[in-house]
Amino acid sequence: MAADRSRNVLIVLANPEPGSFCHALAAAARDALTHSGHHVEISDLFAQGFNPVAGRHDFTTVADPARFHYQSEQAKAARENGFSEEIAREQERVRKADNLILVFPLWWGGMPAILKGWLERVLAYGFAYVDGHRFDSGLLRGRRAMTAVTTGGTPERFSPEGVYGPIEGVLYPVQRLGLEYMGLSVEPPFVAYGAPRVSNEEREAMLANFAEKAVAMAALEVDPYEPPCHPLDLVDAGAWSRS
Amino acid sequence: MAADRSRNVLIVLANPEPGSFCHALAAAARDALTHSGHHVEISDLFAQGFNPVAGRHDFTTVADPARFHYQSEQAKAARENGFSEEIAREQERVRKADNLILVFPLWWGGMPAILKGWLERVLAYGFAYVDGHRFDSGLLRGRRAMTAVTTGGTPERFSPEGVYGPIEGVLYPVQRLGLEYMGLSVEPPFVAYGAPRVSNEEREAMLANFAEKAVAMAALEVDPYEPPCHPLDLVDAGAWSRS
Repeated sequence: MAADRSRNVLIVLANPEPGSFCHALAAAARDALTHSGHHVEISDLFAQGFNPVAGRHDFTTVADPARFHYQSEQAKAARENGFSEEIAREQERVRKADNLILVFPLWWGGMPAILKGWLERVLAYGFAYVDGHRFDSGLLRGRRAMTAVTTGGTPERFSPEGVYGPIEGVLYPVQRLGLEYMGLSVEPPFVAYGAPRVSNEEREAMLANFAEKAVAMAALEVDPYEPPCHPLDLVDAGAWSRS
Repeated sequence: MAADRSRNVLIVLANPEPGSFCHALAAAARDALTHSGHHVEISDLFAQGFNPVAGRHDFTTVADPARFHYQSEQAKAARENGFSEEIAREQERVRKADNLILVFPLWWGGMPAILKGWLERVLAYGFAYVDGHRFDSGLLRGRRAMTAVTTGGTPERFSPEGVYGPIEGVLYPVQRLGLEYMGLSVEPPFVAYGAPRVSNEEREAMLANFAEKAVAMAALEVDPYEPPCHPLDLVDAGAWSRS
């Protein structure tokens, strides 16, 4: 890794209300990271009007005009530089990030659709993973990630006896199949329970705690992987059966 | 429950390719259910151009013009009939459904964004749940639901030792917080593993198996809940702490 301990941090933010606690979390992390000498970029999906729906509009290339198979189209675009401007921009942000932080409210048990669609469209086949290169050999390996989640529910509801069950179970798909899948080393989630109902003191403590965690993650070793060739040249014919 | 054993079944379908195995699953279920005397409606989200992004466009009403709090806006709309035409149409489909089936490919560990956004926008506060009325007392109780999922991954990858872990863990958020949360009685998920790579015989067997499960679900008792008053009148001031 570089001797320079300064990190590039990408915060992907998914809350429609600029006055939300999610926005406050993102700002707290940005300020603390910047103060510590890191470089922070915030991708505010609602503010950008990000379109989360996968489709031919993702691409300037076409793999198969008759049948739309998403990953085949992503592979073609990855090979031929055929991602739309919006996706290419977000991929460039990811590529240069040492740390990735997703900040979102827990809606209907998961990420808001706008963020789920960001994963689908930006962390594309041929960019973030290819056959035979997932998890420990995912293309984003050497980077770190963290989720920061606000919930309406109290910690009790997320206890083993609670109606929702432990937050680790609720966030398992995003942590494991959304982030670790791409090779990212994922920190435990930061959870602001009952964010709309806590006192101002508790909110301030949560913001400080999250900022501290973001700075702590930035202090950890990173070594962003750079493929020695085009990622699709890493695939061999039998690779899907091993990955 | 009604003596008539005929059911209304809503299939919500989320795959962009009309020739997909998801579409074949939906068609197989529709045909078998219709043949058994049930009424089937398919909400094909990609074909409809469904917008999964939450926003003020969800509503003709406004609870707070200065600060957008999604559930507060949903509550206002539920009270004043202020959902957009698109959402009101989907809610009407849900309201009259005895059974709800979600058919989708597993993308980046979960529902495609377009379907996640359908849950957020359609299964709204004030329509599918209110404070104090979730899970066993959710507003969609007495109805049944099932997910049908196609995966690229093999069953081995979804085994306890597999890289993804058991499918129950992957689908936990949608089963528990997306469907049971609303009061729906949820069947175990139907999973078509490795759908793109199985033989024609295996595909045919999967389609027949799924159709059979859909018909079996339609044979089960239902008793769709009808609130005795406006759902929001069911809320009392202390309800959030109990639900």
